[in-house]
Amino acid sequence: MTVLGVDPGTARMGWGVVRQEGRKLRYLDHGTITTPAGWIMPRRLNRLFESVTELVRSFRPDAVAIEELFFNTNVTTAITVGQARGMAILAAYRCGAEVYEYTPLQVKQAITSYGRADKRQVQEMVRTLLNLKEIPRPDDAADGLAIAVCHAFSTRMNARMAVGK
Amino acid sequence: MTVLGVDPGTARMGWGVVRQEGRKLRYLDHGTITTPAGWIMPRRLNRLFESVTELVRSFRPDAVAIEELFFNTNVTTAITVGQARGMAILAAYRCGAEVYEYTPLQVKQAITSYGRADKRQVQEMVRTLLNLKEIPRPDDAADGLAIAVCHAFSTRMNARMAVGK
Repeated sequence: MTVLGVDPGTARMGWGVVRQEGRKLRYLDHGTITTPAGWIMPRRLNRLFESVTELVRSFRPDAVAIEELFFNTNVTTAITVGQARGMAILAAYRCGAEVYEYTPLQVKQAITSYGRADKRQVQEMVRTLLNLKEIPRPDDAADGLAIAVCHAFSTRMNARMAVGK
Repeated sequence: MTVLGVDPGTARMGWGVVRQEGRKLRYLDHGTITTPAGWIMPRRLNRLFESVTELVRSFRPDAVAIEELFFNTNVTTAITVGQARGMAILAAYRCGAEVYEYTPLQVKQAITSYGRADKRQVQEMVRTLLNLKEIPRPDDAADGLAIAVCHAFSTRMNARMAVGK
C-alpha cells in the first residue's frame, strides 16, 4: 500500500510518500509545493490543485492522508488552510485515491505512542522508522511524511485488530 | 457584464446571476447547489466543484463574486467553509472568470448604503433592484444574488470614479 501524506497550506504544502510492504515501511519521496506570495489566491489554489494531482498521478497512492488543522488557530488562518486542504482533497478524490484525515495529536501518538512528544522527537522517529540518514527537510515536508507514516501504522493496527477478532 | 454571486457552504451553496447592461441591472437566474449529508467530504466537495464549473460554463460570467466568511464563527466551521469556497474559486479560475471577494458588510453597504440593514431589508432591496415579484428563495440563493448585485454596483462605482479622475 502506498500512502501520500499532505500537510496543507497556501504558501507551502508539504508532502511525503511511503510504501508499506508487508511489515516493512519504505520511504519513497518527499517535498514541498510552494506558491508565490505575489500571485492572486485563485492562481495559487490552482497551482496546489495541479501539483497534488501530479503527485497522485505519479505515485498512484492507495490513500492520501491529510493533516487536520490545530484548533488553537484563528478564523482567517482556518479559512485559508481550509481552501488549501480543499485542493488536496479534490485532487485526491478526482484521481480515485481514498482520503483520510488525522489530527496533529493522532500523528504524534501513532508515531511515538506519546502525545506530548515535540516536533523534533516525531521527526527523529520518522527518520529512524524510514531508515533515513538525516531528518527530512523542510519541516512541512517532514510533517507530510509523518502523516503518511501515521496512516500506514493506523491501517496496520486496524488490520491486526481485524485479524484478532 | 455578467456576474455570478456565490454564498459558499458545504451542505448548501447559494448562487445568483445578474447582468449589467449599461445602467440597467437585469436578473438572470438563481439557485442552490446541495450535497447530501451522507456523502463523504471529498465527494461533496467534488459535487460543488463540478456544479460551479457547470454554472460558469453556462452563464459565462465575467466575474465570480464570493462571500467572505463572518469573523464571529468558530474554527471548525471556518475550515469547512474554506474548503467549499476553494471549490468555487478553483472552478471560476479554471474557467477563466475573475474572482472577487466581499464581506457581508460590504454586500449590505453596496445594496442598502446602510451597514446595519437586516437580512430581510437587503433581500427586499435586491427584489426591488432586480424587478422581481417575490424575494428569491431560499436564503442562500438570495445571498448569492445579493453578492452578484454588490459586485455589479462596486464595478459601476469604480468605473464612475475612474471617469471622474
